[in-house]
Amino acid sequence: MSTLALDLAQALIRCPSVTPEEGGALDLLARVLGEAGFTVERPVFSEAGMPDIENLYARIGTGAPCLVFAGHTDVVPPGDTGAWRHDPFGGTVADGMLYGRGAADMKGGIACMLAAALEHLRAHGLNRGSIAFLIAGDEEGPAVNGTVKLLDWAKARGERFDHCLLGEPTNPQALGDMIKIGRRGSLTGKLTVHGRQGHVAYPHRAENPIPGLIRLTAALTADPIDGGTQHFDASNLEFTTIDVGNPATNVIPAEARAVFNIRFNDRWTAQTLGDEIRARLDRAAGNAVRYALDLLPSNSPAFLTRPDAFVDLVSEAIEAETGRRPALSTTGGTSDARFIKDACPVIEFGLVGETMHQVDECVAVADIERLTAIYRRVLGAYFAE
Amino acid sequence: MSTLALDLAQALIRCPSVTPEEGGALDLLARVLGEAGFTVERPVFSEAGMPDIENLYARIGTGAPCLVFAGHTDVVPPGDTGAWRHDPFGGTVADGMLYGRGAADMKGGIACMLAAALEHLRAHGLNRGSIAFLIAGDEEGPAVNGTVKLLDWAKARGERFDHCLLGEPTNPQALGDMIKIGRRGSLTGKLTVHGRQGHVAYPHRAENPIPGLIRLTAALTADPIDGGTQHFDASNLEFTTIDVGNPATNVIPAEARAVFNIRFNDRWTAQTLGDEIRARLDRAAGNAVRYALDLLPSNSPAFLTRPDAFVDLVSEAIEAETGRRPALSTTGGTSDARFIKDACPVIEFGLVGETMHQVDECVAVADIERLTAIYRRVLGAYFAE
Repeated sequence: MSTLALDLAQALIRCPSVTPEEGGALDLLARVLGEAGFTVERPVFSEAGMPDIENLYARIGTGAPCLVFAGHTDVVPPGDTGAWRHDPFGGTVADGMLYGRGAADMKGGIACMLAAALEHLRAHGLNRGSIAFLIAGDEEGPAVNGTVKLLDWAKARGERFDHCLLGEPTNPQALGDMIKIGRRGSLTGKLTVHGRQGHVAYPHRAENPIPGLIRLTAALTADPIDGGTQHFDASNLEFTTIDVGNPATNVIPAEARAVFNIRFNDRWTAQTLGDEIRARLDRAAGNAVRYALDLLPSNSPAFLTRPDAFVDLVSEAIEAETGRRPALSTTGGTSDARFIKDACPVIEFGLVGETMHQVDECVAVADIERLTAIYRRVLGAYFAE
Repeated sequence: MSTLALDLAQALIRCPSVTPEEGGALDLLARVLGEAGFTVERPVFSEAGMPDIENLYARIGTGAPCLVFAGHTDVVPPGDTGAWRHDPFGGTVADGMLYGRGAADMKGGIACMLAAALEHLRAHGLNRGSIAFLIAGDEEGPAVNGTVKLLDWAKARGERFDHCLLGEPTNPQALGDMIKIGRRGSLTGKLTVHGRQGHVAYPHRAENPIPGLIRLTAALTADPIDGGTQHFDASNLEFTTIDVGNPATNVIPAEARAVFNIRFNDRWTAQTLGDEIRARLDRAAGNAVRYALDLLPSNSPAFLTRPDAFVDLVSEAIEAETGRRPALSTTGGTSDARFIKDACPVIEFGLVGETMHQVDECVAVADIERLTAIYRRVLGAYFAE
C-alpha cells in the first residue's frame, strides 16, 4: 500500500494556506505535478478591494477525453489553536488518524487525487486523453478569484473538459456513504416592513410594522415551498434574523427587518423562486402591509448531474474498494461544483466530512489510502481502451 | 382679566428645569406661595446611583376638606434648540401664543393653579378646609424621587388629602375637551425563544427559534386582550422590538428575542394580566417552542376615579368657562396620578397637549386665562359653605 498520499497530505497540511494565503500549498502541487510531466500554470486573479488569489491549472495530454480533478488548497482558519489536541498545521498522525486543518476539507482529498494520478501514470502511462487538475485558492472565501475565473481562463485558452471529479468531503460518516451528483441552490432575501413611529399609548397615531412582519414571515413558513423532485429534497426556507433594534419599550418602531435564506431544488431558478416568494408575500400583505423585498444576487443555482455511465464508473470504483454502494445525493451546502457544471458534468466524492471546519479536524489514514485506490480505479476504468 | 397666570408661566419657563435640574422653578413657587401665606416645605429625595431631586409641598390651612393641586416643574429637554422658532427657555409671547418648553407640560398649568389659588384667597380668604400644592421635580425622569416619595413623606407627617386636581395637559385639541378620570396600566414583557444554532443547509441538525417566536408573537396579537370596560378602551399590546442580531445569512441562530408593552384597563392587575399572557403563550407554545418570559416590574397599575360629585364640580366649572362638557377619559400614557390615587381621589385637567414634548411647544395665552378662571371656579365651588 502506498504512503505517497499520506506524505502529500501531511506536506499540504503543513502549508498555512488559510484563505486568501497560498501558504506554499500550490508551490508543492506545482513541483510534484511538473516532475510527473504535467504542464503547470499558476494564474493569479484580482478584483478591486479584494486580495489577489493564486490558483493552479495542470494538464498532461491534450486530447479527449479529459478527466479533471478539482479542488481547493485554501482552508478555513483554525480558530482557537489552543483548543486543538495537535498543531492544526502539524499534520500529526496519532492512533491511525491524520490531524490538521484541511485534513478532510480538502487537502486530504487533493493528496489522494495527486497520488492516484502519479501512480496511474507510473503504472500505465497516458494511453489516451488527458488528465487535468483545477485547484482554486479561495473556495472558503468569497469564491470570486478562484474557480469561476479559472474556468473562464481555461475556456479562453481552448481547454476542453469531459468529466470532473471534485474531491470535497462528501461522506457524512464513512468512506463510501455518498456521491454528490448535484447541489441545491441558495437564495437570500431581505424583507423590510414599513410602519410609522409613535408612542405605545397612542397606537392609532402610529403604525406598528411588527405585526405586518409577523404576518409575512408566517406566510413564508406556513406552507412548504415544494414537495421535492426526483433527485432533490424539498426546498427549504429559514429565517436567519429579525431585527428592529428599538431600545425604548414605550415607542412603536418605524421599521422591522428580516432576512431569510432558501436552499432550493432544481424545480426553480433564482429568478422563478424570487417571483414565487414575491407572489406569496403580495398575497399575505394585501393592502395592509407595506413591505420591500431585496433579493441578493445569487451565484448558487440548483444543478444536477444526471446519473450516467460516469457516475456508474465512480460508484463501482467506490463499491469495489469499500464494499458499499454510495448514495447519489444533492444535499448539503454549496460547492465550486456549481461553477464547474457549466464546463462539463461534475460529481463530488472525497473523504469523510464529519470534522470539517471544526477543532481537531481529522481523517483516518486508512481512508486516505482507500480513497487513493478509488481514484486509481476511476482513472483505470476511465482510460481503459 | 388677570395677567398673573401669564406672568407666572413666563417666569417658570425661563427657569431651565430640565429633569433632574430644579432650575429655579421651585424657588419661584416657594417664594410666591410663602408670600401668600402657605407653609412651604422643600423635601429633597435621594436614591443610590441617581441624582438628588428637589420637590415642593405647600399648604394653607390644616383642616378638611383639603384640595390638592399637583404637578411637576421639570421638563423634557428642548432637543435641537436651533429648530425652535423662539428660545425654548424664553417664555416668548407671539401672535397670542406663549412659547417655551413646558408651556403645555406643565408649567402653564402650574401657573394657572397658582394664580387661581392666590386670586381665590385674595377674594375670599380661606373660609374652611385647606389648599395644598404637591409639586414633583422628576416626573419626566425615572419618577422615583418625586411624587412617590413626596406622598410617603406627607403621609408620615400626617397630611390628609380629600381631592386632587393634577394639571397635566389633558386636552387633545381645545380647552374643555377632556378630563382624565383614570389611566391605563403599563406592563412590559421580554420574550425569548431558545433554539439550537446550525448551518442553513442542514436545518435538521439545528433548531431555528424564529418560527417559534413568530408563532408566539402571532398568538399574542391574534385576539384582543379584552373588549374594554365601562370607562376604559380595550387593553392593547404592541410589540416594540424583535431582535436576533445574526449577521450570517447561512447560519440558523440559537435564540430570538422580542419585547412587548401592554397598556391595560381596570379588568386586570399587572399580576393577573401577566398570568393571562403566560397562559396564552403556553397554549401557543405547546411542546414545540421553548420560551422564557420576563415580565418587568410595573409601578403603573390601571386605576379609575369613579365619576362623583367632585368630577361633576370640575366638569361644570369647565363647561361654564368654555361652553363645552368635557369627555371623561382614561386614554393616553401614564402620569403621576397613578401614585396620587392611593392618597385620595385624583382627576386631571390642564391645558391643550398638542405640542407637548415637541419643538415650538406652545399654548394659547387665552387658554391660560381661561384655565385660571376654571380653577378659580373649582375653588369657589369646592369651598362654598
